[in-house]
Amino acid sequence: MRTSYAIGVDVGGTRIAAGLVERKGRTIKEVRALTPADAGPFAVVDAIIDLIEDVASGVHPGEIAGIGVGLPAQIDFLKQSVEFCTNLPLAGVDMRSLIMSRVKHLVTMDNDGNCAGIGESRFGAAKGVRDFVMITLGTGVGGALFLDGEPYRGSRGLGGEIGHMVVQLDGPPCPCGGSGHIESFLGRPAIAVRGRAAAEEYKATAIRNEAGGDASAVSAEDVINAALKGDEIARNILLDAGEVLGEALVGIVNLLNPKLIVVGGGIGESCGFLVERAAEVIGAKALAGRRDVRVVQAELGNDAGVLGAAALAFDEYDSREGLHR
Amino acid sequence: MRTSYAIGVDVGGTRIAAGLVERKGRTIKEVRALTPADAGPFAVVDAIIDLIEDVASGVHPGEIAGIGVGLPAQIDFLKQSVEFCTNLPLAGVDMRSLIMSRVKHLVTMDNDGNCAGIGESRFGAAKGVRDFVMITLGTGVGGALFLDGEPYRGSRGLGGEIGHMVVQLDGPPCPCGGSGHIESFLGRPAIAVRGRAAAEEYKATAIRNEAGGDASAVSAEDVINAALKGDEIARNILLDAGEVLGEALVGIVNLLNPKLIVVGGGIGESCGFLVERAAEVIGAKALAGRRDVRVVQAELGNDAGVLGAAALAFDEYDSREGLHR
Repeated sequence: MRTSYAIGVDVGGTRIAAGLVERKGRTIKEVRALTPADAGPFAVVDAIIDLIEDVASGVHPGEIAGIGVGLPAQIDFLKQSVEFCTNLPLAGVDMRSLIMSRVKHLVTMDNDGNCAGIGESRFGAAKGVRDFVMITLGTGVGGALFLDGEPYRGSRGLGGEIGHMVVQLDGPPCPCGGSGHIESFLGRPAIAVRGRAAAEEYKATAIRNEAGGDASAVSAEDVINAALKGDEIARNILLDAGEVLGEALVGIVNLLNPKLIVVGGGIGESCGFLVERAAEVIGAKALAGRRDVRVVQAELGNDAGVLGAAALAFDEYDSREGLHR
Repeated sequence: MRTSYAIGVDVGGTRIAAGLVERKGRTIKEVRALTPADAGPFAVVDAIIDLIEDVASGVHPGEIAGIGVGLPAQIDFLKQSVEFCTNLPLAGVDMRSLIMSRVKHLVTMDNDGNCAGIGESRFGAAKGVRDFVMITLGTGVGGALFLDGEPYRGSRGLGGEIGHMVVQLDGPPCPCGGSGHIESFLGRPAIAVRGRAAAEEYKATAIRNEAGGDASAVSAEDVINAALKGDEIARNILLDAGEVLGEALVGIVNLLNPKLIVVGGGIGESCGFLVERAAEVIGAKALAGRRDVRVVQAELGNDAGVLGAAALAFDEYDSREGLHR
């Protein structure tokens, strides 16, 4: 039977999405649920299984190549084990076996940043590009490396943690415990800190209004919304962040000489002007010969994770079929 | 006839070395000459040809697989063109054709950092390691990436410029024109600046004595020599540099999850305590799961470039032979 479909699952800290995806990246059916983040690992597995059964219902099992699962965790890709997970209680849990014991399909897990990168690589902004860097600006700053046409995961499969590169010695604290990392300047908490400071300093700023007049309640989204409505103070906070992003990417461009940089995540996708500022810095400051790197926004939005996870499942199926031939 | 030898040429800003090298990395004959840095590109080519003819004399041409040339330049590896060259007038010069028009062997060029990395990979500190980062601390800070067992050069072959990654926003100037780069803290000029400041501030420091009592004449070597003789002030300058190196490598470890980091170059090879400090920082600050990366000094010293260039020539010969089979 022809394996026409794969199931992609994108597990986030707040939401889980699953989709039934065709080989060419068309999603036939997609379902979502809240992540039971505080109910232990088995509740997360249950939620994943429910979504898988939902999207698979009515499809002959033989038509499904497999299941790809993107997790907000450090995955040892070769061992298929969850090594570290900050936001969900999954570290050390054998997620793959737990899922495979209940659904009769091959499961392949990867870090969510890698899944988003695979998605953009197959179906989005990086289609056809062999060497690119994806960076996702959200609550955390993550990403993925594609080198010579393949995701590069490092010796233990733990690579791609772009957010935790140092750009400022003795810089501001990072949620990971370090300091001066890219995430210290560009994650949602960092943007919120600057937004709250501005809302306190400038009584008239639109940022404060976005937070209902309460400066101490300002979130990163309030800053972004104010900026998108034209508030200069909010815009400058995000342009400063874009400047730091550019400086960090200068180093990555000099190190890896990519052809393309894809900026995704909620902040990357909503703030084109931030991405443009980063591109300007790269154009001015990268070593000669590397400045023609294109810097673009991600194209698939929230779908990148599901599509990339599904592509991973197809790849795994195809490589095993290849072995059996 | 069996191709038992390759010729490796290592072109530096001050010296050129060439060696006749066996497949297993034994150097049969090695010769050196000063680089005619101010006499134009043809003088450099002449010097290279002289050295090649010298090491090749007495060997049947059919026994030589080819010639590898490492240049202190940005090489577009696929095009085999010299794109940028700071210290020698070689940019835009078709070095490969010029050399091949006069010696009847295949010539393959690469960046000197990549050649040193290939050398350490085949015959030195990184033997058998598939994923490692080489960083060379000298006048400039360079390096090479080995990913999945192969040198990774980036989309145009211009990758590996580890020295020009930002570690300090608005940091001290870098010889490349940027600021706050790794090289701004760890290249010889940066060490010398700190050495001169210390020699002026602390009248009694051994650094000043190394420079013949003239604080304004202090070089990086003077700082290193004073530190190796036990001067605390000199040692602290280099430990501070090791700290910055560690912070920078934390980012690279988080990004690439290598198995090994090889620190070479004159400073890296003479200052074990600086490398140890960097390793301590990585052990304390890299994300969990990546801290077991080994950090070691390079093993081949100045020979790495010649050996790596020769290995490149063997590889190129073998891959062409493979194509003809």
